[in-house]
Amino acid sequence: MEPPDLEEPKEWYPPENFSLVTPGIYRSGFPSKKNLSYLNKIHLRSILTLVPEPMPEANAAFYAKHGIKLYQYGVPGNKEPFVDIPEDKIVEALRTLLDKRTHPILVHCNKGKHRTGCLIGCIRKIQGWSHIAICDEYCRFSAPKSRVLDQQFIELFDISKVVYDIRFKPS
Amino acid sequence: MEPPDLEEPKEWYPPENFSLVTPGIYRSGFPSKKNLSYLNKIHLRSILTLVPEPMPEANAAFYAKHGIKLYQYGVPGNKEPFVDIPEDKIVEALRTLLDKRTHPILVHCNKGKHRTGCLIGCIRKIQGWSHIAICDEYCRFSAPKSRVLDQQFIELFDISKVVYDIRFKPS
Repeated sequence: MEPPDLEEPKEWYPPENFSLVTPGIYRSGFPSKKNLSYLNKIHLRSILTLVPEPMPEANAAFYAKHGIKLYQYGVPGNKEPFVDIPEDKIVEALRTLLDKRTHPILVHCNKGKHRTGCLIGCIRKIQGWSHIAICDEYCRFSAPKSRVLDQQFIELFDISKVVYDIRFKPS
Repeated sequence: MEPPDLEEPKEWYPPENFSLVTPGIYRSGFPSKKNLSYLNKIHLRSILTLVPEPMPEANAAFYAKHGIKLYQYGVPGNKEPFVDIPEDKIVEALRTLLDKRTHPILVHCNKGKHRTGCLIGCIRKIQGWSHIAICDEYCRFSAPKSRVLDQQFIELFDISKVVYDIRFKPS
């Protein structure tokens, strides 16, 4: 009898709220143990986490084993309206996302709704999306818990603060 | 005074319910006139529509002008539970999606919820996603009008009926 192939399950379990944002950039909720093999399946090179806590051991070990680089720009995940999001952290995170040498990269927080939604909204703003289109997407991932203050954060975010190396800009 | 650049608007208007499904495959609701320039911006090579009606003139002219090939697998868009979806049409549509020579390709129906959701669900099944992950995604795009019968269609769909040319399978 063949031993089971632990690296290639019969079914794949992407993390909750998983989606491809734009070529090279994915988004999701926090990857649990059950989701890890899928991250390898899509050949991730990097993970950008917005949670401030240390990674669970299973995640850290998996990333190390598969050469997945972890970028951590921790933002507090409180239940308050998302007004205290530190803009400098978002600027740093955007610089990482806008460097295609980090791609394919997965952005996540806990649920993939609010912190991730704010960051992805800023990427869309840089891509020139209209505000309605940005909010349509934000709400799809955060429903039924969409926050007006998140959408306001995106609307007020000054994209000119995001300075990045044009040579490595994603296409 | 410079003439306005009609091809490069200041803001982009992706169609409603727009998303990247997997590298090379996009999904959305019906692209209106306002959305057309964005389709060119993302360098679409093909559009796969699930609506049976002829394309509006503005769409047809835009696709012809930009060399975007239209594949039409019309499925009735009635308000009944989605039990009458002709499986052969879905099989044909999947063959087109699974040929990377058509990529980048956009799948759409009217709202990008039910018909598109069924087709994308079948793609996920071919990709080996677990049924819960497929339903999570289906519901994100169809909320608050998710249909159990759509999800049942996906669950019962026999992927062995989809025969395609392995040489052109997307990676």
